Amino acid sequence: MAEIETVVDNYIAAWNEGDAGGRARLIAETFTDDATYLDPLMSGDGAAGIDAMIAGAQAAYPGHRFELKSGPDMHNDRVRFSWTLSGADGPVAAGTDFALVAGDGRLEAVTGFLDQS
Amino acid sequence: MAEIETVVDNYIAAWNEGDAGGRARLIAETFTDDATYLDPLMSGDGAAGIDAMIAGAQAAYPGHRFELKSGPDMHNDRVRFSWTLSGADGPVAAGTDFALVAGDGRLEAVTGFLDQS
Repeated sequence: MAEIETVVDNYIAAWNEGDAGGRARLIAETFTDDATYLDPLMSGDGAAGIDAMIAGAQAAYPGHRFELKSGPDMHNDRVRFSWTLSGADGPVAAGTDFALVAGDGRLEAVTGFLDQS
Repeated sequence: MAEIETVVDNYIAAWNEGDAGGRARLIAETFTDDATYLDPLMSGDGAAGIDAMIAGAQAAYPGHRFELKSGPDMHNDRVRFSWTLSGADGPVAAGTDFALVAGDGRLEAVTGFLDQS
């Protein structure tokens, strides 16, 4: 079973990975094949759908990077963690993600919420 | 469909309601019959199980009250909100709850996390 800290680090890395092959590998290590993602702005269904969604977000925010702000905070098969998205001029967004964790340690359902940035 | 603000107000009220009949009514307005609750300290399965769990928490914290601290913050069929638990000497605990919202507006799966109080 993957350690949750590693899974969440890979999750953030996937959002930052501009190389398609590298991103696909990070997503495979982070999400179950049938994982879902849903936040107020976008959604992705399955690892491939999440990959395409992240590619779209990267295209919308060129030169921006996600960083882990707090967490992961896990109990039972549930985890939450908070992140920031920053550009050259500083943070432009922040959020808290909540996820169900599969038996192998990967994320199987992620819900994102937007915090004050 | 119940407004999420009303549902969350009733959720907090259920945690504070010491009268068994009143609490059962609030829980019926707040949770679907097959709802689940899970936090780091306790769990409840079904509305009746959640009722029994809340009764146990009230017995463990006599004279304490829950208050809504922030939210509800809802998108799609997901909501989060934060709360505090206070006794005569002030706050003793704080947390953030995340829930799936059923089609009728009631909560069908709640995950609680503990925040710094």
